[in-house]
Amino acid sequence: MRKWLLPLIPIFALALPSRGEETNAPAGERIALPPAYKNFRVIGLSQRSDDQSLRAILGNDVAVEAARAGKTNPWPNGAILAKLVWKQKQSAQFPAATIPDAFSSVAFMIKDDAKYAATAGWGWGEWVGLQQKPYDKAGFARECVACHSTVKDQDWVFTRPGELP
Amino acid sequence: MRKWLLPLIPIFALALPSRGEETNAPAGERIALPPAYKNFRVIGLSQRSDDQSLRAILGNDVAVEAARAGKTNPWPNGAILAKLVWKQKQSAQFPAATIPDAFSSVAFMIKDDAKYAATAGWGWGEWVGLQQKPYDKAGFARECVACHSTVKDQDWVFTRPGELP
Repeated sequence: MRKWLLPLIPIFALALPSRGEETNAPAGERIALPPAYKNFRVIGLSQRSDDQSLRAILGNDVAVEAARAGKTNPWPNGAILAKLVWKQKQSAQFPAATIPDAFSSVAFMIKDDAKYAATAGWGWGEWVGLQQKPYDKAGFARECVACHSTVKDQDWVFTRPGELP
Repeated sequence: MRKWLLPLIPIFALALPSRGEETNAPAGERIALPPAYKNFRVIGLSQRSDDQSLRAILGNDVAVEAARAGKTNPWPNGAILAKLVWKQKQSAQFPAATIPDAFSSVAFMIKDDAKYAATAGWGWGEWVGLQQKPYDKAGFARECVACHSTVKDQDWVFTRPGELP
């Protein structure tokens, strides 16, 4: 490398997207990976018999406040829902329990009814596996919307917040 | 009420335990309801076929940091695990999904190997239903320890933290 290029490296580095956003950065209907999602709080959970998986549905502060206040139809702009998916397995120590096996994916819905007007008011994204490979199939968001259209009367969200004391 | 008693009311009120701690306050082997548990972060989840329930296992900051660092054998003192339990039902909108129905209970394990030396180094407690009625059967903690003895080689905790990116 020629010496005169070296001072440019730190500047260029600042412009790089952070880990996990390399190929699924905001562009058109795509969203960026919300960086803090592992610290979101729990809103719901599910088990799926069709693909043998367990899912935790977490929310950012805006989403959790809306869920606890019962104000989820519509969800407020700024709400982010994260669905963490694990393959399931039987517990060796407690055979009646089904527990997480390998991590599968994390999917997001980000509410912004202006920015994402073309996709039902939500931004949609999914990252697969521990490497968080973006699921960037063409038309991905429209595929999400098509499936979620069965719950358009509850603002396109399947998850109903779990009852809490 | 005699007038001279009135000024005492605010002082007395300060000494009252907060909601949910009335009859299960620390005394011997009992623990108090950790007030912030709904804001704990997710560590694991499970579905139980024996009682048709879904469970989210949450942790306080000490527990979550230990889980993410893989330092859970033993769990550090100060770790609190909260197990939120819902009865399960089939989703009407997505029949392959099992989702939470009514809230059942919340159970806790609080690690303090000195304070709770008599009960495997953990404080144990459970509160039932939306009213959070303390489950205060005599010998409750020893019953917990007896069941959890099958996992004493993993510090008496069934939950293994879910794999995360």
